[in-house]
Parts: sequence; structure tokens; C-alpha cells
Amino acid sequence: MKLTLLAGVAATLAAGAYAGEAVADEGMWTFDNFPAAKVKEAYGVDITPAWLDHVRGAAVRLSSGCSASAVTSTGLVLTNNHCVAACAQALSSPGHDYFQQGYLAATRQEERTCAGMQAEILTEISDVTPQMTAAGAGLTGQALVRAKIAVSSTLESNACKGDPKFRCQVVDLYHGGQYKLYRYRKYSDVRLIFSPGVPAAFFGGDPDNFNFPRYDLDSAFVRLYEDGKPVATADHLHWNAAPPKAGEPVFVAGNPGGTDRQLTVAQLETQRDLTLPITLMQMSELRGRLLRFSEESPEHKRIAADLVFGLENGYKVYFGRLFTLNDPVFMAARRKAEADLQAQVQGDAAKLGADFGNPWRSIAIAQQSVQALYLPYRMVERGPMGSDLFDYAQDLVRAAAEREKPSADRLPGFADSQLALLQKRVLDPRPVYPDLERVTLGFWLSKVREYLTADDPNTRLLLGRDSPEALAAQLSQSRLGDPAVRKALWDGGMKAVLASDDPMIRYILKIDPTARQIRGQYDEQVNGPTTQAAEKIARARFVAYGDRIYPDATFTLRLSYGKVDGWSYRGVTVPPLTTFAGLYDRATGQDPFKLDPRWEAARARLNPDTVFDIATTNDIIGGNSGSPLINAKGEVIGAVFDGNIHSLGGNYGYDGTINRAVAVSTAAITEALRKVYGADALAAELTAEQ
Amino acid sequence: MKLTLLAGVAATLAAGAYAGEAVADEGMWTFDNFPAAKVKEAYGVDITPAWLDHVRGAAVRLSSGCSASAVTSTGLVLTNNHCVAACAQALSSPGHDYFQQGYLAATRQEERTCAGMQAEILTEISDVTPQMTAAGAGLTGQALVRAKIAVSSTLESNACKGDPKFRCQVVDLYHGGQYKLYRYRKYSDVRLIFSPGVPAAFFGGDPDNFNFPRYDLDSAFVRLYEDGKPVATADHLHWNAAPPKAGEPVFVAGNPGGTDRQLTVAQLETQRDLTLPITLMQMSELRGRLLRFSEESPEHKRIAADLVFGLENGYKVYFGRLFTLNDPVFMAARRKAEADLQAQVQGDAAKLGADFGNPWRSIAIAQQSVQALYLPYRMVERGPMGSDLFDYAQDLVRAAAEREKPSADRLPGFADSQLALLQKRVLDPRPVYPDLERVTLGFWLSKVREYLTADDPNTRLLLGRDSPEALAAQLSQSRLGDPAVRKALWDGGMKAVLASDDPMIRYILKIDPTARQIRGQYDEQVNGPTTQAAEKIARARFVAYGDRIYPDATFTLRLSYGKVDGWSYRGVTVPPLTTFAGLYDRATGQDPFKLDPRWEAARARLNPDTVFDIATTNDIIGGNSGSPLINAKGEVIGAVFDGNIHSLGGNYGYDGTINRAVAVSTAAITEALRKVYGADALAAELTAEQ
Repeated sequence: MKLTLLAGVAATLAAGAYAGEAVADEGMWTFDNFPAAKVKEAYGVDITPAWLDHVRGAAVRLSSGCSASAVTSTGLVLTNNHCVAACAQALSSPGHDYFQQGYLAATRQEERTCAGMQAEILTEISDVTPQMTAAGAGLTGQALVRAKIAVSSTLESNACKGDPKFRCQVVDLYHGGQYKLYRYRKYSDVRLIFSPGVPAAFFGGDPDNFNFPRYDLDSAFVRLYEDGKPVATADHLHWNAAPPKAGEPVFVAGNPGGTDRQLTVAQLETQRDLTLPITLMQMSELRGRLLRFSEESPEHKRIAADLVFGLENGYKVYFGRLFTLNDPVFMAARRKAEADLQAQVQGDAAKLGADFGNPWRSIAIAQQSVQALYLPYRMVERGPMGSDLFDYAQDLVRAAAEREKPSADRLPGFADSQLALLQKRVLDPRPVYPDLERVTLGFWLSKVREYLTADDPNTRLLLGRDSPEALAAQLSQSRLGDPAVRKALWDGGMKAVLASDDPMIRYILKIDPTARQIRGQYDEQVNGPTTQAAEKIARARFVAYGDRIYPDATFTLRLSYGKVDGWSYRGVTVPPLTTFAGLYDRATGQDPFKLDPRWEAARARLNPDTVFDIATTNDIIGGNSGSPLINAKGEVIGAVFDGNIHSLGGNYGYDGTINRAVAVSTAAITEALRKVYGADALAAELTAEQ
Repeated sequence: MKLTLLAGVAATLAAGAYAGEAVADEGMWTFDNFPAAKVKEAYGVDITPAWLDHVRGAAVRLSSGCSASAVTSTGLVLTNNHCVAACAQALSSPGHDYFQQGYLAATRQEERTCAGMQAEILTEISDVTPQMTAAGAGLTGQALVRAKIAVSSTLESNACKGDPKFRCQVVDLYHGGQYKLYRYRKYSDVRLIFSPGVPAAFFGGDPDNFNFPRYDLDSAFVRLYEDGKPVATADHLHWNAAPPKAGEPVFVAGNPGGTDRQLTVAQLETQRDLTLPITLMQMSELRGRLLRFSEESPEHKRIAADLVFGLENGYKVYFGRLFTLNDPVFMAARRKAEADLQAQVQGDAAKLGADFGNPWRSIAIAQQSVQALYLPYRMVERGPMGSDLFDYAQDLVRAAAEREKPSADRLPGFADSQLALLQKRVLDPRPVYPDLERVTLGFWLSKVREYLTADDPNTRLLLGRDSPEALAAQLSQSRLGDPAVRKALWDGGMKAVLASDDPMIRYILKIDPTARQIRGQYDEQVNGPTTQAAEKIARARFVAYGDRIYPDATFTLRLSYGKVDGWSYRGVTVPPLTTFAGLYDRATGQDPFKLDPRWEAARARLNPDTVFDIATTNDIIGGNSGSPLINAKGEVIGAVFDGNIHSLGGNYGYDGTINRAVAVSTAAITEALRKVYGADALAAELTAEQ
């Protein structure tokens, strides 16, 4: 982590736009508001409606929180290795560590289903702003939150009409400025074909994560299946294995997970002063516990690997955010941007509406409630980090309770339109590791006691007179690791749940009423008032900037434009392209800079000048992992897998001079498939259609 | 940790004085400027010069970072259990865990020397402000720092004239406003007599730490020896085992370690935005690693116990600080206090001096250097947390190099006046645990790579092409755990050091030139300019407030006044006294709320109404641990061992409405010695002289 650079990130970011009109290559644009004229002017490229439709039709969203793209007509999908890491981990067993060693299906029969994974392709966008805005009219607090959930779940059900091949989702854009209904063609059988494994995909490990130059083959292939057969994907991207060139215009179509560029200063201050420090401190301690756990035996290392990766990756992300917000220059710029927007719309009462009031102040008041509610919300309602048993039990208990209500009245996540994916996630077979559960549950319970204090009623409910260690040992005896047990509880509904003597089910039954109550308080005092105020601020932003702005990221499909480009910072210039030769130069023989043995063996066969990884100016963020890097012709030339260290501040604002996306090239993937992995059939499939 | 209360701490603190004139019971007063008139007015107690001399003569400073007091005429000294924890740990072995189970010397022969511990009693204070101020005249940066060190080491040598029974120390008060020479009678042979062990002394463990009500017998006894015989301590405090009363005036004589009440806002911002978050995140991860390490076996738990305690305690302290500084109301009050001081002295150019300039701005500029230098300084010059091998090697290598220079030219800590204690620390036998060293060293090296980045020249120097784990394994093979090896290197000087093939010695020899260079940069850009500016601000403060202020804590003897008192916060009133009965009510049978078996056995014999722990309004902070709680007559009625959760904000300001010191009563100690521990001889010794 280039922490020594971080202090400077925000200072430079202060030159950026901050939720005003987009500048330079900034923007995670929706497909129905892409600034084609601006791109034409900057890069001379024509992004036509046909181009957009073609790319949209090939862009894939994965329920693992990643992006991807169809790259052949037979359902072959390119994504990142770290997007199939949980799948590889789930397919592994003590003798077979696909997470570390990778996986290659030599035949169609060896293509193996990824637990819980669903692929979705966006087919249609329609506007539901009037209905969603009307839903909240005259309401406040929790009532407002519930009314919007009710209307959105009804809109979703009506749009998809129960067709199991589709998923419909109401998407909140611009923090309530627009609501769109996204209709997806969905594929619930996604099978793993190729993963290079961690040493090659994540060479340099955590130390090199979010850094560049990089030498990572962070790519993987899955295939979409339906009715036991590969899916025909007409709208796929053509595979272009030619190396990209510095300065070449490039596009990224993917699903950035979330950004906070349009939040108010009061909301950022809460992140800076409360939520980020607590998150980072808790993640740090769990990281320490898991790293030591991993050193205890190869089996411990194997079973904790994916969780450790996720934790370290997330830690770095939040660390970058905290140090961006800790920069007074950055915060001053945000304050100025907020004041500018307020000044711009002053006197525009006609456009803002009679009820406009002072939404910034309303949000600031809601932040005071966050101060009081955050810890119980985090510790009780959100529960432990990394416990599958807890999550299974909570989903089973809640699904049983919610399914007894009409769809529109349920908790978010349990509407009819959302149940199919939830059911898949809960029922798909996946190993659960009791030893690891003891660590994550014990850690969580110890933090409950520490952060809420020993005498707090919530601590008494969650811990009783037990010690965290003793209770964690007891809960980790749950039998919910067995998919058959989960299925019986899912199918049996509340009657089966209430009859269960599983310790984790009993535990969730005990704590869930309190967790729901805390959630309700949070809706009442934070989410409700914030939703109401944010809609007004969105209105102000449209008044001031029209459609020349893009919405904050929401894990929905966006298109970003830019070019292959390095950057200069504090006198150091970083070129945009790395080659295979650089990998061998950087290897030390010590983990995580140790070469995969296959790469050692293949060294003489490989062209050392093959372009490996690529830095580009595209505006991306977590969730974009696996997104295709696309050239002007609409061909795939890489897969985005990371950003540079300056991209971490991108959560709050984009600075085109230093913010970079990082991708692995199709050139490297093609060469490696053939010469490192002997995956000639896969390479042939990729290149056959060109 | 009462985190849920923390958000409110600072808001209430905003009513405090903040380094202006002291209010209410505020103040850690030097013995030569105690506000006796104020105490007379508030409490009707006459604090006479004789009273002060008597208490000063009985007050003991321990080199373990604690305070204590002589309580009989034969060298018996009362302190806290946690102040002898490292001693108990050092005396332990796989079969004998005195840290957990406590220790009781049945005879004088069983009183056992504490490794590295020295006791010091202040005998004389003289003013050296003119010499120390003159030392820096006309100098800046590193030259200024060095000149002051040179003069102070000469002053110390001259004052003690090489008498091994004394220690002389130049003390910087008011951040350069005054320099005093403190002369101590020192005792280098301190022997452990009684420790109750952790379950009784630290009942409630980390969850209850810094909370109240408490039920902890956090007391211990050591005895001062000289020439193999107990020291005669005429100036001891009389042991009064009668229970204290609510509202009773009480005094605390001890050595508060450090406060930041007179720092500038710019310095506090650096703590808030940079040093505290990084410290907390690193401590959290190490805590996680060590907690998991401790769960691996009883022996791991035993050897890591003292380090884990220190880490968790420190974590809570820094956490309280961060959340005080994160409170905008608190920071606004500090900004106002700074502006008030500036306004008060405006126009007083005659008193401030022609060179006054704008010292606040000078410090703000130095803070920019902290941004750039903090990480290399922390990771390279300060080195790992909790590695004895590293510390031994660094001390041996540096002592060898420094002793070749004249005393005045040496690094701080190596002057002739300081060498005796350093030598004792390095040479006293103490167990070193290679398994634990691997954890602390491996953690440190991994953070070096993470925070400085893999390609940084400092990382390359410290890690080379090794992995943190491999290098830590190698360094933990050092033989410096053997006191004979250390003695040979100490006595042999640089020649022996250079000839050593010990891996840790070789390692320090490799990295020390760079570490010294970083230290020099820090002196040049941070310490030098800050010293210069802080002296000016101190001058301004004297101009504005005269002698009605006390200096920030410096681990030197102070006296605080106040009363036995509970507090009310957010509608909850906490009474000031707990009893033995409360201990049994709170016990759950699960660690850390599990009763010591001796306390379980003694339950029927004990008077349940015995006053156990006491909350008082005294202004204390870390370093005050073990301080005698003294009544108006100058008798000891308790030992301070903690503060309440609101006292954590006390680093930056005192608020008499909620800031509380926490002590264990002499009543509880006396009763427990007799009825729980069967320590009748010790109890008799304590009470014989009354």
C-alpha cells in the first residue's frame, strides 16, 4: 500500500470536480445517458447507439459482486480470478486447493458449477421515477422507507411477471434523483472453466495490491449454462489479443459497486470520524487473528485464504478512504463544492419545489442519530464479519418469517423478486469450516462486549454470562454447513425453523427481534430522513447541472471512457504497460513474490515482451473487477482487476491526472493459456471467432 | 470500553479550561508550585510545606513506568499489581505462573528481585531554566536539539557527581517554559513481596478496564533493598485501613506519564489524522495475532500475557484519545482557547521578546514534516512493538557506539547520567521467548513493507528479498536472551559488537545508520523547530496566566487534589465506592469475570461491606498507576490504578464533572491480605506502625 503517497492523493484530488459537472475522463455513466459527444470531441471515437447496445448485451454482472463479459457465442465469460476465488475455494477440499493452484476444465464435463453464483445481462431500462417519488409523498422516517420498499418490490414483480429467466430491479440513481427499472436476463448455473490460481493471478499479494506496475494474470473464465447446456451468447465481445498502445482510447463496461461522490459533507465527516476508524480497527484485529490462524497449519491457511484476501483488500480500500477524508485540503474542497451548489440553486425556488427547505441540515441532523445508533446497528443487526453459519441462520430465520407476509411488506432482500437468488445462495452446497467459524464468531462476540460494553442490554442479549470463546465454540457446532439441513429449514418455513434445535438457529431466533428493532430505529432516524433530504439535493443538482452529471455507483451497469495512460506523481513517471519480463525481474522466491512453478517452467517459451498489465484513465471502483477493457471497435482487449493507489480516493472524487484503472491484457491471457497452462482448447475457442 | 459514552466525553470536556488557568480539581501540580490556598478554600485542608515534604519523601517512582509509595519504615512499598506484572512474568516459568497466580514471599528470603526495576525518591528540585534556555540560543533544527541535550547531560553529571546512589534528571516543564533539575535517591534492587495475580487484580479484564464500578485488588508490594538489606524509609506514609467516605478530600502523589493539554491545535490535528489512526490500526492487528497465539496453548498464553495486557490497555487509551479529537465540539473549544491566549498576549511584545514571531505557525509548519517523516521514523527508528531481542540489540549496538563519545555528545538515553539504569535494564536476567519474538518481529516487518511499500529503500534495507516470516524466524534465533551474552557485549564495547555473529546484532548493525539518519531528520525538521516555538508559547502562557497553571505531565512527581466522588452522565449516577459484595455479584464463572479460587474459598470469611474500589475527582493519567491515595492527614488510604472512561479524554483536558481516578482501598487490601491470602505477616507489618 503506497501509504507514503496517500497524504498527497487528496490534495491533488482537490482539483477534481466533486459531484459537480464531470471533467476530463471522469464518470461512471449509465447507458441511457452516455456523453458520446464529449468522447467524440476528446478521442474522435463514435459511440453509436448500436455500439452501446452491443456492449450492453455482452456485459455480465456476477452475483459475487463482480463484472464480466461474454467473449464467445457459446456462453464463455471473461472475469477476474479474484471474482471466482470464492468459487474455487468452495470447490476445494484438503487434497485439492484450487484457490491456490487454480483450475482448468479439460472438457465440458469438468466445467463445475460455482456455488451461489448468478450471471445477469441487462436487457432493458425503464423509468419509474414518478412511481417511486410518489411512494414517499407525505411520509417520513421508517414509514417512508417501507413505502418505497413496497412500491419497488411491486414494480419489480410486475415487470418480471414471475419469469424465472429474468430478474427485475428498481435502481436508485443520483440518491433518489431518478429511479429506473433494470430488467436482466439471468443465468443461475455458472461453471468454472479456468482459474490460474493465486500465485500467478495475485503475484505480489497484498503488498502490491492497488499498486502499479503490476504483473498479475488476474483473469478467469466461467461459462453460462441453462438446462444443462451452454448458453448461446450472440452479443459477445470479440477477443482481440493484439497488445494495446499507450494513448489508445479505451472503455470499461461494468458495475462499479458504490461511490460517495454525491454525499454531503456531514455524511463524509461521519465516515471520517466514526464509521471508517471503527471498521478499520475491527478489520485489523480480525486480520491479525486470521493471519496467525493461517500460520498454524496448511489446512488452516487453505480454509482461511479467501476470507483473508477479502479482508486485506477491504482494509486497504477503507484505509485509502480514511486518509483521503483526513486530508483537510480535500475536505475544504468538498465544502466549497457543497456551498457552490447551494449558491447555484439559490433563488430557484420554483424549480426546487416549495418543500425544499434545507436538506443539507436535515442530513446533518440524521448524522447525529448515526453517532448514537451505529454501534448497535453494526454489532447486532449486521452481525459478524465472515461467519457463514450466522448468515445462513439469519437468512433462514428471516426468510421463514418474511415469506409469511405479502411481498410488498417484507424486509429488503426478501421480496418475491429477490427470493430466487437468496434461495440459491442459501441452498447451494459450499463447505463451512467450524474452526474458522470459531475465530470469526469469537472475534465478533468479543467486539460486541468491547464496543457496546459488558453491561449493555445488547451485550447481555448476545453474550449472556458466556465468554465470547465459549459461546463461539458452541455456535460453531451448528449443522447448517450441511445443505440438506438448510434445505429442510428453507422448505419447512417458520414451523421447521421454530422446531429446530440447531444452536445457531436458536441463537438467531433469540436475537432477531432486537436486531429488527435496531434496524427499525435506523430506518426511522437515519435512512428515512436521509432519503427524503437526498432526493431534494438530487433535484438541486439537476437544476444546476442538468444531465451533465452521472449518478454515484450502485453496482449497476455503467460505461467509462478514457485512454491507456501512465501517470506522474512527485516527479516519478509510471509507464502504462508492463511485460512478462517484469514478472521475472520482480520475483524473489519468497511468498507473495514467488513464481508459480508453471510460470517458472514456461519462462523460456514465453515472449518476454508480451504486454501483461495495463494502466488506463478509466473511472472505476470496486465492483468493476472483471469488467472488459474495450477498444474503440468494441473488442475486448483486457479485464480490469484493480486501480492504482490513487484510485482509492476515487470513492469521493475522480482526478484524471493520477487515478488509474489496472487491467490484464488479452494478449497476456492468450499467451499464458497456450504456453503456461496448456489450455489450447480454451485459447482456440477464444480466438476461433475472430 | 464504554465507547457508547465516548462520543459525549469531549462535548462535556469543552466546558474545561484547556491549558488556560486551572479550574475546579484540575491540575497535576509540581511540589514547588502547589495551589495550597485554593485547596484551603475548596476543602478547608492545610497543605503545609511539611506535609508536602513528608509526602514527597514517601512518593516513589518506579522505572517500570509506575508510581508507588513507601508505607513502612523498612522499605515496604505499595504499588499496583499491573506495575509488577512484568516482574511476575519475568520470575515465572512453565511450571510457575506468578503473573496469573500471584506471588507471596513468606519470608524475607523469598522476596525476589524484579528485573530492570529501579525505585526513585525525589529529594531536591533546582531551577536550571537559564542554562537550558541559553543552550539553544541562536540555534535551530538538529543543532538546537543537540545543544540542549549536551547541556542537560552536563548539568545532570555535575549535580550527581557520579554518586551511584543518586539519579539526576533535567526536566522540561511547560514545554520549555521551565527546566528543573530533579535529584532522586535511587534504589536498584527492588524485590517482589506480594502480587495477588491477574484474576483478582484485574477482575473484569479488558472489558472492565477504564470502567467503574470496579472490583479489582490491583495492588502489590515490593521492598527496596540496598547492599542486600531492606532500606530504612523514615519518610513513609502511615497505613490507614479505615474506609474512606464520599466527599472526603483526597490527594494523589505520583508521576503522570504525559499529557497533551498544552499542545497546539496543529499538533492535535496530526495526532487525530495521522499518528493515532496508524497506531491504533497497527496495535489492533498485533493484538489479533497475539490473541490467537495465546489460544494455541497454555504456554503461549502464559508467555504472551503481559504483552497482551499492555497492548490492550494502550489500545483503549489511544482509542479514547482518537474519539476525543474526532469530536468537532472539543476541537472547536481548543481552537478558541488557542485564539484566547493569542488575544491575551497581543500587544505584550515587551514581555514576549522581540523574537516572538508566530510560534503557532512554526509548529504548524513542523507538522507538515511529521506527515512526511512519521512512517519511516515509526517503522525504522522506533522498530517493532514488543520485541525484547530487537531492543537489547539496539541498546547494545548504540551503547557501544555512544560510549566512545564524550557524554555530552551522545544520543538521548546514553549520557553518563543515564547509563546506569540502561545497563541494569539490558543486563538483568529476564526470559526471552523466541516463539513470541517471531510473532512480534514478523508483524513489524510485514507492516514495514505495507506502510513504506515494497519498493521503498527502507523496506529494501529492512527486509531485503526475504519474507517477513522468514526473516523473523532467522532473527528470533538470536542468543541475546542469555544475559551472559548481553554482558559480554556490553563489557566488550564496539569491538565485541562488531565481532559478534549474533543475527540480531548483525541486523541492527546493518540498519542503524539509516535509523540514526531518520532520527536526525526528525530532529532537524520536527523536534528542533517545535522546541523553539513551544518555548515561546510557554512564555506567552506565563504572561497570560502567571503561576496559576501547571505543566503538562512528564513522568515526574506531581500532586493532585480532589475528593471521593462518583459522577452522573446522561442521567445515570455512579456512586463512588464499591464493596466486596459487588465482586461476587458480578462474577459469571467465565474469564475474565471468573473468581480467583482463593476469593471463592474466602467468601464466607470476608466482610461483604468492605470498601473495595474508590472513584475520586483527582486529575491523573497513565504513569499515576500505583500512586498513593492520601487523606488530609497525609495517610495512605488507597492505591490509584485506573481512571474511568471519561478520564481518557483527560490527555487533552480535565473535566471535573465526569473525569474520575479509580483506586483500590487500603481497607480492601488489608482485609484481603489477612482473609484471602493468609498474608498475616505482611498485614501486620503494614499496620504495626499505626
